[in-house]
Amino acid sequence: MTITPTKNEIEKWFATLQDHICQQLETLDGEATFDQDLWQRPKGGGGRTRTIKSGALIEKGGVNFSAVYGATPQKILDALGLKAADFFATGVSIVLHPKNPWVPIIHMNIRYFEMSNGIWWFGGGIDLTPHYIIKEKARAFHHTLKKSCDRHSERYYPHFKKWADDYFFLPHRKETRGVGGIFFDRLDEKEGHTKSQRWAFVQDIGNTFVPAYTEAVADLRTKTWTETEKEWQKIRRGRYVEFNLIHDKGTKFGLDTDGRTESILMSLPPEANWSYQRKPQLDIERETLSLLKKEINWLGD
Amino acid sequence: MTITPTKNEIEKWFATLQDHICQQLETLDGEATFDQDLWQRPKGGGGRTRTIKSGALIEKGGVNFSAVYGATPQKILDALGLKAADFFATGVSIVLHPKNPWVPIIHMNIRYFEMSNGIWWFGGGIDLTPHYIIKEKARAFHHTLKKSCDRHSERYYPHFKKWADDYFFLPHRKETRGVGGIFFDRLDEKEGHTKSQRWAFVQDIGNTFVPAYTEAVADLRTKTWTETEKEWQKIRRGRYVEFNLIHDKGTKFGLDTDGRTESILMSLPPEANWSYQRKPQLDIERETLSLLKKEINWLGD
Repeated sequence: MTITPTKNEIEKWFATLQDHICQQLETLDGEATFDQDLWQRPKGGGGRTRTIKSGALIEKGGVNFSAVYGATPQKILDALGLKAADFFATGVSIVLHPKNPWVPIIHMNIRYFEMSNGIWWFGGGIDLTPHYIIKEKARAFHHTLKKSCDRHSERYYPHFKKWADDYFFLPHRKETRGVGGIFFDRLDEKEGHTKSQRWAFVQDIGNTFVPAYTEAVADLRTKTWTETEKEWQKIRRGRYVEFNLIHDKGTKFGLDTDGRTESILMSLPPEANWSYQRKPQLDIERETLSLLKKEINWLGD
Repeated sequence: MTITPTKNEIEKWFATLQDHICQQLETLDGEATFDQDLWQRPKGGGGRTRTIKSGALIEKGGVNFSAVYGATPQKILDALGLKAADFFATGVSIVLHPKNPWVPIIHMNIRYFEMSNGIWWFGGGIDLTPHYIIKEKARAFHHTLKKSCDRHSERYYPHFKKWADDYFFLPHRKETRGVGGIFFDRLDEKEGHTKSQRWAFVQDIGNTFVPAYTEAVADLRTKTWTETEKEWQKIRRGRYVEFNLIHDKGTKFGLDTDGRTESILMSLPPEANWSYQRKPQLDIERETLSLLKKEINWLGD
């Protein structure tokens, strides 16, 4: 815990995390397995895109690992107000779209970035997007995240929960993407944290993914559904598309910097619908819309 | 032709154009009719959003008219490098998603913008997005647009066709949105055109919409289709979503300036699919992909 990780150690750990998560998700799904695409970035580095589809649980999902390096893209330099420098970036990124409309969509991303000028940081997040919000499930998810955060700093959960509320938000819909979770970026040595401590936290979040998802899908995955419920799922998936294409910073950054399009857009759902002025038809649809708000305390009763 | 139109005349003409186009599209569809939503903009003006769905021809479509005014949003002032001024903007905007995958998606927008400081311009465009490109159909569409352009200036078609190639383009896919058409913006008095002449051109484009679409759907609308073809349509619709949410300037501007979300996003398809690394399966799919390029001369044989 007290040894500062090197970029190679971080990269290797992320690659191994991808392996473990894919194995565990295959077990959880019970039917489908991951396909892998190895790809290389012409300007340095590459990745392993792993996708799964038509499973018993997961209709479409991806678990990506990448480690890329080279000259820092001008867009980042401009954003940071920095002069030319080399960069190294590695991370794991996951989005799972379930078949069953009662099961939530989940997303996780954890990443490390460093530059030849000595700048480095960790970033990431994990958030849950239920098509139908079931309060107990949202609470359990937040309690699980809080527990992982609290092992590192009591300030993490409240800070990163609020950050997720603000980040996973669609201003044009005045809706949060789902019930949120945690989001964090530029975690460096400020506020007295060492690199080792930040890294231990990021690893903990990575390890929390499978248990959190397993808990989130339990019971729900075997629930039967109607056509109305499936249609609602597709409408909600449309909102997910809107968030990812309009607001998601990782998507924007990836597309702007000539990233691998098919890996970036693996986050999009298998099917999404748009219907003009679609009104909620079921009580739970209305309830769900009423809960797509910031600042809900998911730790309370 | 020699009388300079006032903003009220332009607005009234656009509203009437919406009426005519809706009537003609209802006739062309033969089954579905438009629903209307009247809306008001809190800060000035409003519009008539007309939508149609589940028709014999049109699965989901919208024909919007709006005329809005008030203080110019800061984003526009910044973009133009101007100080505070009032603005007035009016236009008609159309997107039609057909049921039959052999029938193309069509889009048209024509608009007028003026400011209290004397600045004014016309803008617009019309473009065709076939799920399957049929060369003769693409050629006929471009010949129709050229004919309308040529009545006003021989320079219009080549200039505006290139502009459409550049505008309706998805850099992250290295694909044009479809077979293009024409696109133009900031048409004012430069290059010796009077306001009356610009207006006559814009009216001509507005009047070209229904004949151009009628010609584009002829024969194709009665073609039978397979499940494979329907799935391809949904994949192509996914690209349409990507263009509209990532690149379309009208969408971005509307969402950024707190426009009416449901009217802005009426352009999105009823159903869109994303499939990781979806490869073309039919010859015509491969042929279509090979034709999603800039600088194709659609006037030749």
